[in-house]
Amino acid sequence: MTSYIYYTATTLDGFLADPNDSLDWLMTQPIDNDGPFAIADLMATVGVTVMGSTTYEWLLRHLGDDPWPYPEQRTFVFTHRDLAVVHPSIELIAGTPAEHRARIEEAADDLGVWVVGGGHLAAQFASAGMLDEMVVSYAPVVLGAGRPLFTGQFDFELLETAQNRAFLIGRYRVVGPRG
Amino acid sequence: MTSYIYYTATTLDGFLADPNDSLDWLMTQPIDNDGPFAIADLMATVGVTVMGSTTYEWLLRHLGDDPWPYPEQRTFVFTHRDLAVVHPSIELIAGTPAEHRARIEEAADDLGVWVVGGGHLAAQFASAGMLDEMVVSYAPVVLGAGRPLFTGQFDFELLETAQNRAFLIGRYRVVGPRG
Repeated sequence: MTSYIYYTATTLDGFLADPNDSLDWLMTQPIDNDGPFAIADLMATVGVTVMGSTTYEWLLRHLGDDPWPYPEQRTFVFTHRDLAVVHPSIELIAGTPAEHRARIEEAADDLGVWVVGGGHLAAQFASAGMLDEMVVSYAPVVLGAGRPLFTGQFDFELLETAQNRAFLIGRYRVVGPRG
Repeated sequence: MTSYIYYTATTLDGFLADPNDSLDWLMTQPIDNDGPFAIADLMATVGVTVMGSTTYEWLLRHLGDDPWPYPEQRTFVFTHRDLAVVHPSIELIAGTPAEHRARIEEAADDLGVWVVGGGHLAAQFASAGMLDEMVVSYAPVVLGAGRPLFTGQFDFELLETAQNRAFLIGRYRVVGPRG
């Protein structure tokens, strides 16, 4: 069975990005790339990444001359718009996670699916029963406004805690929509 | 020097209460009252509690037949309204934290000040240089909307992490407003 994980950094007050989609608050934080819950550990387990259009467009804007960062994975971008496709591993898809479940899981093969963000897409996956775990890394910042970590109301179960330099990290099982 | 601490529980997405000021999401979580960062440990160090009117009114509504929970502390409620005063230790004050700094610290004597909430009052204390630490206990829930953990933009330094049953806990030094 394909495992879906929402793995993200956020502010202490639950924002993925500031109101202008800036991640300056995140990029300045110290992190140990060989420490707990480093991105390399995640990527070794992931065959597919899924993301919303805001996340994808942020990545495109910040690539500069760098190549696409996830060439080994198949990437599905949920959007109704005709966005630039900068690598053959990327596919634009419209509709809901449930509608595309079969092809996402076929592309993942025996590996997992990383729900990159944002919070609305994560909530859509959780609502569809297509989210098993969430790993949240809290950066030591509050912003007071910005892009939400999650939309809707869901329960989780705390499985594991960790610290990686400036980050407070929790690994959670997704229990489901709040009763 | 008086030490000010903002000690609070919050959802994973940074809400202190749901949009109707309910704490149902919090009250159902398991916690070890002898475990790390339990409220009794805090109260032993605190001579003054300060809170906004929303927090105070929530407490009054939920007291039922119970007595006021902080009789050993002096409580200052920041409000411009003429709210009910249910215990002689409670005083209603208007204005800013800085305007009342001398009397808050005199009342604290050699003990600390607990900034109970909400997030706007915590930001006012932080802006005035009257917030030293924040202890955040994350309950395993997202709500998508509600009362904010903090308003404004501030930097923190992670000092300590802990788990208490369902709660992921971080203790932070307040660095100050974001540059």
